[in-house]
Amino acid sequence: MDALPPLVDHHCHGVVRGDLGLASFELLLTEAAAPAAAGTTYFDTQTGFAVRRWCPPLLGLEAHCPPAHYLARRRELGAYEVTRRLLRSTGIGTYLVDTGIPGDLTTPDELAAAGDARAREVVRLETLAERAADAAATPAAFVTAFAEAVHTASRTAVAFKSVAAYRHGLALEPSAPGPAEVRLAAADWLAGRAAGARLRDPVLLRHLLWSAVATGLPLQLHTGFGDPDLRLDHADPALLTDFAKATDGLGTDLVLLHGYPYHRQAAYLANVFPHVHADVGLALTHTGARAEAVLAEVLELVPFGKLLFSTDAYGLPELYVVGVRLYTRALERLLAGWVDEGAWSRQDARRVAGMVSAGNARRLYRLPDPGRDR
Amino acid sequence: MDALPPLVDHHCHGVVRGDLGLASFELLLTEAAAPAAAGTTYFDTQTGFAVRRWCPPLLGLEAHCPPAHYLARRRELGAYEVTRRLLRSTGIGTYLVDTGIPGDLTTPDELAAAGDARAREVVRLETLAERAADAAATPAAFVTAFAEAVHTASRTAVAFKSVAAYRHGLALEPSAPGPAEVRLAAADWLAGRAAGARLRDPVLLRHLLWSAVATGLPLQLHTGFGDPDLRLDHADPALLTDFAKATDGLGTDLVLLHGYPYHRQAAYLANVFPHVHADVGLALTHTGARAEAVLAEVLELVPFGKLLFSTDAYGLPELYVVGVRLYTRALERLLAGWVDEGAWSRQDARRVAGMVSAGNARRLYRLPDPGRDR
Amino acid sequence: MDALPPLVDHHCHGVVRGDLGLASFELLLTEAAAPAAAGTTYFDTQTGFAVRRWCPPLLGLEAHCPPAHYLARRRELGAYEVTRRLLRSTGIGTYLVDTGIPGDLTTPDELAAAGDARAREVVRLETLAERAADAAATPAAFVTAFAEAVHTASRTAVAFKSVAAYRHGLALEPSAPGPAEVRLAAADWLAGRAAGARLRDPVLLRHLLWSAVATGLPLQLHTGFGDPDLRLDHADPALLTDFAKATDGLGTDLVLLHGYPYHRQAAYLANVFPHVHADVGLALTHTGARAEAVLAEVLELVPFGKLLFSTDAYGLPELYVVGVRLYTRALERLLAGWVDEGAWSRQDARRVAGMVSAGNARRLYRLPDPGRDR
Repeated sequence: MDALPPLVDHHCHGVVRGDLGLASFELLLTEAAAPAAAGTTYFDTQTGFAVRRWCPPLLGLEAHCPPAHYLARRRELGAYEVTRRLLRSTGIGTYLVDTGIPGDLTTPDELAAAGDARAREVVRLETLAERAADAAATPAAFVTAFAEAVHTASRTAVAFKSVAAYRHGLALEPSAPGPAEVRLAAADWLAGRAAGARLRDPVLLRHLLWSAVATGLPLQLHTGFGDPDLRLDHADPALLTDFAKATDGLGTDLVLLHGYPYHRQAAYLANVFPHVHADVGLALTHTGARAEAVLAEVLELVPFGKLLFSTDAYGLPELYVVGVRLYTRALERLLAGWVDEGAWSRQDARRVAGMVSAGNARRLYRLPDPGRDR
Repeated sequence: MDALPPLVDHHCHGVVRGDLGLASFELLLTEAAAPAAAGTTYFDTQTGFAVRRWCPPLLGLEAHCPPAHYLARRRELGAYEVTRRLLRSTGIGTYLVDTGIPGDLTTPDELAAAGDARAREVVRLETLAERAADAAATPAAFVTAFAEAVHTASRTAVAFKSVAAYRHGLALEPSAPGPAEVRLAAADWLAGRAAGARLRDPVLLRHLLWSAVATGLPLQLHTGFGDPDLRLDHADPALLTDFAKATDGLGTDLVLLHGYPYHRQAAYLANVFPHVHADVGLALTHTGARAEAVLAEVLELVPFGKLLFSTDAYGLPELYVVGVRLYTRALERLLAGWVDEGAWSRQDARRVAGMVSAGNARRLYRLPDPGRDR
Repeated sequence: MDALPPLVDHHCHGVVRGDLGLASFELLLTEAAAPAAAGTTYFDTQTGFAVRRWCPPLLGLEAHCPPAHYLARRRELGAYEVTRRLLRSTGIGTYLVDTGIPGDLTTPDELAAAGDARAREVVRLETLAERAADAAATPAAFVTAFAEAVHTASRTAVAFKSVAAYRHGLALEPSAPGPAEVRLAAADWLAGRAAGARLRDPVLLRHLLWSAVATGLPLQLHTGFGDPDLRLDHADPALLTDFAKATDGLGTDLVLLHGYPYHRQAAYLANVFPHVHADVGLALTHTGARAEAVLAEVLELVPFGKLLFSTDAYGLPELYVVGVRLYTRALERLLAGWVDEGAWSRQDARRVAGMVSAGNARRLYRLPDPGRDR
């Protein structure tokens, strides 16, 4: 297949700035929140094997070398240089960065500089709301401050993102809550915050979603697997069907992130609702040698104009490398297979590859055209 | 593999009689209810690519030619001739036609004539009930009229079909409702009909199902994906488990249609309940180049004596072509692979192919044997 | 790939002692509870075809010979000799036997003798509770007797097992019930037992689970498909997420058995909770020629240190043969494929094969090391 255009990674995160020891590196390979069980290691996962396959050669080592050798070489080069080398190997031209994860992570600008690429921001609604709550003395003040924050963000961000899947699950009433309901829920939440209450109230989460919908910017929604904060079956994108119906025709696009193991459900929603899109991110990175099979399942029902590439990389620049390599290899093998058996024409395969890798994201997020991108 | 016997398409629909423009044709390729999102087209789907692969050569064009060329050629030949050519290429010997979809569609007899084949009718319960309600002045009159309609239909139809999945979802109480309950529910529904209320009441839907069960004819149930009227997770066939238990041993067979992406669940029910059968229809047409993978998943748990071929074609004769080609190719490749690796014997593969393609449907729907079929 | 070490079958059952006729044999091929539908046979399933592939040659017949020939040869040799021959062909070195299924089945010792291997017992909680109830005059006596039974069993068993999935489903409150609650629930159940009430009360089932957790022995949980006593969607392992959270860090390991068709969900829980493990058992035996595809799906998210081989064989020694052959073939093909394409190193593949086949079970169940096993 012909070379792909510069990729648009439409959902990703910053990477850790400092050097990493073996244990911290290992913990960033997984969605788990605790060290691996005694006698096991997170390197013994598809993600771990994929990192060991693709990354050591980029730092001058043999593929599949032992993790300790890789980490030693990584420290020798230093995190800054490693990030630079790894990102520049990816072919990503544009990063759309969700900046809502706390921690000492690179900003979008730093990511762009390290990767010699462009970066734009995706703003996480729950983070905006938590900041608004920090400064708000009353529920009414919170509501106003959040509205202003959304308005301000909408001027520079390319999209909003919600992690309602983590906070309450996706079984939410589909309609926008009324102002009185929102104030009441805000009062409860503000009262509990001193004791550390996170934003989990379903009324407030719906208020966040509908505030984003009102801006007209695309709204990314986490669906499917993630860290153990989430209950998997409550993150099934099928639970968003009524929300998809309620937002149909309003002019705002929804993007269902990840979805695994419910990625066929996400593809179905993209099939029947014109404003719904699907993503391949996390699912490929975490399934490694199986990425082709997982991508194939997404490509069953999703209209090819509505599937978007992402890495969902977080913490480690290695996850950008792995996300890109797994994606491009999976896509090329799948499409080549379909072309070889006559199911797809070569031109269509080339066209679809370009759409999923960059074109769909450019259209959806209204990014400047590739010629003007660098 | 040897040639298949004439196929029995045990679940399909009429096709549009008149000529079609590009936009109307495109909308019939999808389960979506609205035009494709700006910048996208439903031709860019697995179904669209499958149509472009198989159909143009049947009308004298190159495979994968642009949609506009195909539509122009289609209008040149006229819908009547196109339907004739396409249907006669399929190898379908018997059509079991669900006549419950409104619109200017070919009747079973017209389909049989165009395809040089036989056709029998599958009667949709909700349509019968809506017609009974049109003529009924009182709930009691509705109940009587519906009972008579079911009785009359059972004399000529080969099966009943329910779309309860669309109307309420499959999470229904498994038992038959009592007469008083049914009358009460009928009264509510009749009162709401003036305002356009569709039959969505779970008590009435159960009454419909049990009325069909009482006839002894096979009962087809829509499960899994369909148009956006349906909520996907409410159409999971696993929700029918208690209904399967309640109807076990009564002598009436259940046929779970489609099922995707819950087709493994449908296959499971066919595995553990002797009277439950599964189908491959819609799932293959809409997954195109992936049909082999989807069929393989169904063939994990389903007993081979209880899987039935269908196209679920609707509106476009092209969907008959695609449904058959995808099915036969997928089946032949799968079985040939299993024979080559020694997992199945060649005789068993041939026998199973015949069962799924025609034999199981002939037994289930008590169709005359193939020799007497034409 | 190199030869595997002697396998540890970490979840299996006894086999029928006497000779079997065709009908009894056929019914043991399936999870269904009733004879096959008229015109069909359970030999026409992936399991049936797998048995006909692998077993006849072990008794001196041609692969895929007709079932009647196989059964005749089986009776000629006698059940004792057949069991001996079949088990000794498997390479299983250790059987961990769930003894909770009633019927005239071989004990773990008999299985070990027939297979020239070791056997240890897995104790089923619901069976222990039912025995405790048989002897108990009052709820308090039941509670004491059950506690003693668990304590006694924990001295010799390698693990406990729960079939809560069959009795109530897995949607249980995650916390341990209080003593008063347990006594009340026990009173209700004991009162109903005269009328044949099985242990289905969710409070008692939680009490059983937490009693096992308190021993520190691994706890095996049935998840996913099984016989029609179970409602499939109520056996989704994702429903155990809150129980996994509640037991995290307590030092007791959970093992999610089978899981199909929700095996990706089971693998996810093993991915994010250090004490959760997953299994391949039943799913491979019942999917036959598709075992490689199903195992591949499990290997997407499961950490390789937490996947365990089992056959879940029950009743027929043939199911041991089939479980082992399907597993080893599937594993070897998958890993060889990944090594060939460079995704995994050869050493890693060899190491993972050993871990899943035996090493993980040895660590988890604290079995003596292989050198001392025979």
